[in-house]
Amino acid sequence: MSEQIAFLGLGSLGTPIAGNLLKDGHTLTVWNRTSGKAQALLDQGAREASSALEAVTPGGVVVSVLADDAAVEEVLSDEVLARLGEGSLHISMSTISASTARRLAERHEAHGVKYLAAPIFARPDAVSSRIGNLCVSGSAAAKERGEPILRPLVKGYFDFGEDAGAANVVKLAGNFMIAATIEMAAEAFTLGEKQGVPRQAMYDLFSQTLFAAPIFQNYGRMVAQHTYEPVGFRLPLGLKDINLTLQTAAEGQVPMPLASLLRDRLLSAIAKGRSDLDWTGFALGASDDAGL
Amino acid sequence: MSEQIAFLGLGSLGTPIAGNLLKDGHTLTVWNRTSGKAQALLDQGAREASSALEAVTPGGVVVSVLADDAAVEEVLSDEVLARLGEGSLHISMSTISASTARRLAERHEAHGVKYLAAPIFARPDAVSSRIGNLCVSGSAAAKERGEPILRPLVKGYFDFGEDAGAANVVKLAGNFMIAATIEMAAEAFTLGEKQGVPRQAMYDLFSQTLFAAPIFQNYGRMVAQHTYEPVGFRLPLGLKDINLTLQTAAEGQVPMPLASLLRDRLLSAIAKGRSDLDWTGFALGASDDAGL
Repeated sequence: MSEQIAFLGLGSLGTPIAGNLLKDGHTLTVWNRTSGKAQALLDQGAREASSALEAVTPGGVVVSVLADDAAVEEVLSDEVLARLGEGSLHISMSTISASTARRLAERHEAHGVKYLAAPIFARPDAVSSRIGNLCVSGSAAAKERGEPILRPLVKGYFDFGEDAGAANVVKLAGNFMIAATIEMAAEAFTLGEKQGVPRQAMYDLFSQTLFAAPIFQNYGRMVAQHTYEPVGFRLPLGLKDINLTLQTAAEGQVPMPLASLLRDRLLSAIAKGRSDLDWTGFALGASDDAGL
Repeated sequence: MSEQIAFLGLGSLGTPIAGNLLKDGHTLTVWNRTSGKAQALLDQGAREASSALEAVTPGGVVVSVLADDAAVEEVLSDEVLARLGEGSLHISMSTISASTARRLAERHEAHGVKYLAAPIFARPDAVSSRIGNLCVSGSAAAKERGEPILRPLVKGYFDFGEDAGAANVVKLAGNFMIAATIEMAAEAFTLGEKQGVPRQAMYDLFSQTLFAAPIFQNYGRMVAQHTYEPVGFRLPLGLKDINLTLQTAAEGQVPMPLASLLRDRLLSAIAKGRSDLDWTGFALGASDDAGL
């Protein structure tokens, strides 16, 4: 069913998601905090609003893809939620902490707005080609209205129950595992390189056999070849996600020594002036440490 | 071409490899440090020798699958190498350090014995079904005679050049990456568990999508379900391999903070009395730390 959707956040993930929603026949009113990001979507038939408040419709659907916890809490203000009101739905695709998601869900409920946590695993090109994987959690009513909008956008659709925080826990765990894979490849390839085994030869073996899955194949290649541009996901955003993982871990009293190591790698990469690289660039830390 | 092979070491990997060599039509004389391991192979037509020296034939082929560096250096004594002599070949499948492999290759060469490093990635059941992956390195002459014996044993055959140490570097890097995958799954699933997301639900998502490859699928399932028996690879052997990785890293001046973390996890698992578990059992450390 075609929906009237307010789309908030036109970053590197938001823009291709909005484009696909237009292709799916939905009517979109888009808004971004900074202007000048909407032109391609306007050319495809979207309308632009000058504020989040202006973008939303009473009883309608909002999709947000925003940078961090603070942005989601600020943009989905009580004023915006009051305008949305009873029967409306907010599909929240940002990678935020589980506790923020739970707090948002409560605040939404107070205004009669359904909250569906729906973070996505996909780099921008995977979003465009609809091969990403989506984690959802929230009330049955939120999922009932959200699912027909979301399913056509992705290859995998995974339901983690009613707790609004659950999907974000899974998303943070996944981003942590991606970073762990980057670190493990960086250390392994550096070990080989120093012993005379080419990084690419090790990548070729492992990416075809024991680790023949998308994360190792994509990120492992970048690490093997030290190719950290073009940027699919900026390095400071990677640090933000690992910090959210550690924050969520701390709330649950879960020591994560590997996540702590990754946090320090990302911090060091920023200290060394690598903020403009893809987040995979923290792999350079293992090479630096080995004097390469 | 059918070969006369002396097969040294009938552990959990050696026995199924020897069985497949018999099926491939080779003639085997088997030996193991402790007796009582050979019966199944004798029933399949192997002959048993009472010592490594008695097992080998001048100019013949030796395959060894031994526990550690010291065992390989001791069993392949100068006396044994002198008996093997010119034109013979030793296929060394044990997981040992790169520097031990290089030292062995030199000592072999002094006796005219070709040395082929050929460590295998496979758990016992994967060896039986010939779906493992083999890394080889050594002289062209060693590979020429060894390849027809080895290729039918595995699915993947990867050549890392002439340096006898190279294949062992790759094998150690691979075992390190397997251990890293166990730790990353343990931390991620524990994070989820404490936040109310079932370990199995996280495993189901990631093993079908981002990490849909053998290592995460097999070890991740064990970690999700805390199933650390039956034992495919004993925990103290896992510590041995990570120690070899760190030793090889130290020789090359490569700091590997993730490998150091894994070493401590394995040490702790032994300290807690878990030596009889599969090495994947060090994943319990993340649960212990979280008070689970």
